[in-house]
Amino acid sequence: MSKRILVTGGCGFIGSHLVDSLIKEGHYVEVVDDLSANTSLEYLKQHLDCESARFFKYDIRDIEKLNSLSSDFDLIFHLAAQPDVKVSVSEPRFDFDVNVNGTLNILELMRIKDIPEMIFASSVGTVYGETDVFPTPESHPLNPISNYGAAKAASEMYCYSYASLYNLKIVSLRLGNIFGPRATHGVMFDFFHKLRKDSSKLEILGDGKQTKTYLYIEDTIEVFNHILKKIRAGHTVYNVSSYETISVTEIADELVTALGYDDVRYSFTGGKRGWKGDVVFTSVDISKLLSIGWEPKTTIREGIRIYSEWLNEKYP
Amino acid sequence: MSKRILVTGGCGFIGSHLVDSLIKEGHYVEVVDDLSANTSLEYLKQHLDCESARFFKYDIRDIEKLNSLSSDFDLIFHLAAQPDVKVSVSEPRFDFDVNVNGTLNILELMRIKDIPEMIFASSVGTVYGETDVFPTPESHPLNPISNYGAAKAASEMYCYSYASLYNLKIVSLRLGNIFGPRATHGVMFDFFHKLRKDSSKLEILGDGKQTKTYLYIEDTIEVFNHILKKIRAGHTVYNVSSYETISVTEIADELVTALGYDDVRYSFTGGKRGWKGDVVFTSVDISKLLSIGWEPKTTIREGIRIYSEWLNEKYP
Repeated sequence: MSKRILVTGGCGFIGSHLVDSLIKEGHYVEVVDDLSANTSLEYLKQHLDCESARFFKYDIRDIEKLNSLSSDFDLIFHLAAQPDVKVSVSEPRFDFDVNVNGTLNILELMRIKDIPEMIFASSVGTVYGETDVFPTPESHPLNPISNYGAAKAASEMYCYSYASLYNLKIVSLRLGNIFGPRATHGVMFDFFHKLRKDSSKLEILGDGKQTKTYLYIEDTIEVFNHILKKIRAGHTVYNVSSYETISVTEIADELVTALGYDDVRYSFTGGKRGWKGDVVFTSVDISKLLSIGWEPKTTIREGIRIYSEWLNEKYP
Repeated sequence: MSKRILVTGGCGFIGSHLVDSLIKEGHYVEVVDDLSANTSLEYLKQHLDCESARFFKYDIRDIEKLNSLSSDFDLIFHLAAQPDVKVSVSEPRFDFDVNVNGTLNILELMRIKDIPEMIFASSVGTVYGETDVFPTPESHPLNPISNYGAAKAASEMYCYSYASLYNLKIVSLRLGNIFGPRATHGVMFDFFHKLRKDSSKLEILGDGKQTKTYLYIEDTIEVFNHILKKIRAGHTVYNVSSYETISVTEIADELVTALGYDDVRYSFTGGKRGWKGDVVFTSVDISKLLSIGWEPKTTIREGIRIYSEWLNEKYP
C-alpha cells in the first residue's frame, strides 16, 4: 500500500538511497534536509522533476519549520544527524542540539500531528561503548564513550517513552558502518582520497587494528524496507550489521587491491583509537534482525569493489 | 578534607538536607536553585547568615548564569530537576529542557571549567520502565515509559560519554522514592493533606496495588556522604533504595495509623497506574551499594512515623 512518508536527512548518503527505494515502491515522499554535511539535491533531483517527491530545506532543530509541514504522514524515517564522532567530541552542544534536540522535535511532531510510525537511524558502533560481550546483543547496557553515541542512546530513551505514552510505533535501527556508492565520508572515502593524492603511501589513524562491523548500502536499504512492513506498537531496537567484521588495515588492503594500486607503504598515527571517542572493536549480534527474515547479501570485499568502481567514476 | 562544592537544587527537599550535612562536615557550599517546584530559602537561611554557604537564584537552563559562577569547585551535586512524572508527560519539552539540557549545561560547566567530580541524582523508579527482572540490577537495560525517566536515562548517557572523553569522575545515584521531613510532594504528602481536609475518606490513585521502593531521607544523605568519599574515574551507577517495598494502600494504612486517624474509608480511582507513565512495580537490587559499606537504618514504617510528626508540626 502506498504511504505518505517523511524522510529527514533524505539528501544524505543513506537517505538518498532510501528515497530512491521508497519511490520505486510507489510511496509518496517528502524530504527534509538542511544540505549540510556534504549533502546536495544531486540524487533527489530526478524525483522532484517527476513530482514523486517534495523537498524542504529545513534544519531539524527548527521546530517552527517542521510544524509547517503537512501533517498527514503515515511514517517518518528520521535519518538527519550530525554524523561525525569527532565533531561530537569537540562541539558537544552543537551535536546535542542536532542529534538529541532534533530527534525530540521529530517525536514532538509525531505526538502533536498524530503521525503514528517512525524508523530512527541509531548507531551500533557507538551506543554500547567498550564492552567485552561479543557479539553484543541489543539488550546490552548502553555505555557510550562519545557524545555522538550518547546522543543516539539518549534519543532511543525518548523513543521508548514516546512510544509508550502516546501509542506510537517506533523502531530504532542501530546501524553499523554503512558504505557504498554515494558515501562521502568514512574510512574508505578518506583512504581513496589519500591514495589519489599519493599512491605510494597511506596514513592510517590509530594502530590499524580497530575492527568494526560494516554493511553494504543495498543490504541496509533492504533492512529499512523490511522494517517498514513489520513495524509494531511500542519501541523496538535492532542491531543492523553484516556477519563480518574487518580491521582498518584490512580495509586498506581491500581498497588498495580494488583500486589496482600496489607497493603502498602504510604508516600509522599510533594509539589504539583512531580518534577520541573511537570504539576500537565492534561485533554485534544480528540474530534479532535475521529472525524477521532479512539477510545480508553482499560481502564486505564485494561491497568495497563496487564502491571503488563508483569512486573512480565519480572522481575521475 | 574540606571541599568547595556546588549543589544544584540545594533548596529542595533532598538538596536542603544535603547542604546541611555538607556544611556540618566542614565543606564550603554554593547553592544554585531557581526556587521553583515548592522550594524556598527557608532551610538555607541559617547557613547564609553564617556565611558558610552562598546562594544564586539561577535556572540550570541558563548557561550564561552558570558560567558566571566561580570555577574552583571540587565537586558538583546535581539535584536540580523538574521532579514530576505527570508534568513530563503533559509538557515533554519543558521537562526535556530542565532535565536533559540542564544536565548537559552542568556537564559543560565541568568540561570548560575543569571541575573534576559530579554526583548526579538519577531515578531508580523510572529509568528501567516495566520489567520482569526483580530485584532489578543496575546493568538492566533502560526502557523508560515516562519522559521523566527518559530524561534521567538520557542524562546518564551523557555522564558516560563526558566521564570517558574528558576524564571526569561521575556517579549517578538512581534514587527511589525519598521521603521524610521537608518533603512537600509525593504520595505521603498528598495523603496527609487529603486526610487533613476530610479524615473520613481517602482517595487513592489507581488500584492502590502499585508497589515501590522508598528510602528515608537520613539514609539517603548517608549515601551521598559515602559516595563523596568513594568517587572514582569514569561513570558509576548505583541503585539507591532500602530493602523494603510498600504498596500505596499500605502507605495509606501506615500514615493513617501514624496520624492517629481511624475509620478512614478508601476509594480508588481505578486502573493499574496512578498516572500516565507510572511504573507500578519497582524492586531494585542494592547489593552494589551495600558492597561499599552503606546500609539503610530506618524502616519505612519508622520513617513514616517521623515524617508524620513533622507534617503535624509543620501544618498544625
